[in-house]
Amino acid sequence: MSKVSNVPYSALQVGQTATFSKTLEERDLLLFAAVSGDRNPVHLDADYAAKTMFKERIAHGMFTGALISAAIACELPGPGSIYLGQQLTFSRPAKLGDTLTVQLEVLELLPKFRVRIATRVFNQNSEQLVDGVAEVLAPRKQEEVELTELPPIQVG
Amino acid sequence: MSKVSNVPYSALQVGQTATFSKTLEERDLLLFAAVSGDRNPVHLDADYAAKTMFKERIAHGMFTGALISAAIACELPGPGSIYLGQQLTFSRPAKLGDTLTVQLEVLELLPKFRVRIATRVFNQNSEQLVDGVAEVLAPRKQEEVELTELPPIQVG
Repeated sequence: MSKVSNVPYSALQVGQTATFSKTLEERDLLLFAAVSGDRNPVHLDADYAAKTMFKERIAHGMFTGALISAAIACELPGPGSIYLGQQLTFSRPAKLGDTLTVQLEVLELLPKFRVRIATRVFNQNSEQLVDGVAEVLAPRKQEEVELTELPPIQVG
Repeated sequence: MSKVSNVPYSALQVGQTATFSKTLEERDLLLFAAVSGDRNPVHLDADYAAKTMFKERIAHGMFTGALISAAIACELPGPGSIYLGQQLTFSRPAKLGDTLTVQLEVLELLPKFRVRIATRVFNQNSEQLVDGVAEVLAPRKQEEVELTELPPIQVG
């Protein structure tokens, strides 16, 4: 998937859905710790995490926020979207090996190209981890964008 | 900074503040793209970004969300905090080289160890990029935590 198309405002409909999935690997915990600056051991140290209420390493809560933002930017409405706001409620943590699926659903079309989108994240057992709503300025024109290739990123 | 102390619920006061700063480097854009999966060229391709309304590469909006989450997890209330929710309003993008400062302020102490915290992000020109409110389950006990050392992460 190197090219992605957007859904311009004029083609958005209430009830429209899209999904975006990713499996949480140790590499993701390390990269998120590096980019955010949050090196708390509950995310990174298996021995420490075993003594917490979570019993094992969990993802940073905002990792799921990052996945939601990627789902909006890459799937619905996709490239050209401008993020205006996001509300998030975290109810369960994501654990190593979990396959996380962001489910987007258009809730409301607002004036001036704005759209409200439900942003829900589930794990592979259909347990909901995150609930929320995004407000997005949708693209005005249909467009296909070439995603940028990243350089190799080596961890450890 | 390898050890950080938290502020337990009993020591939190309305009006208490903390800050957390980071300068946005190209490396951050690449790492955030890798960990989120959002490789849109407005964040990664200088030539593409020059033709957009932003004129240059901008950070993913949720990068500032990641900084806010790190500020909460590392500064106020700090280690042992559990993230319950976050509301974010994005008003300006962060640009390469910007020094971003998250300002936290305790707004309200709620029952059952919960606290509402204002989460505002400014750039080096005191322009506000993000406004928002976090809801956090504060730690019950004072604690000092050793942050985990990350392995080397090499980009490119």
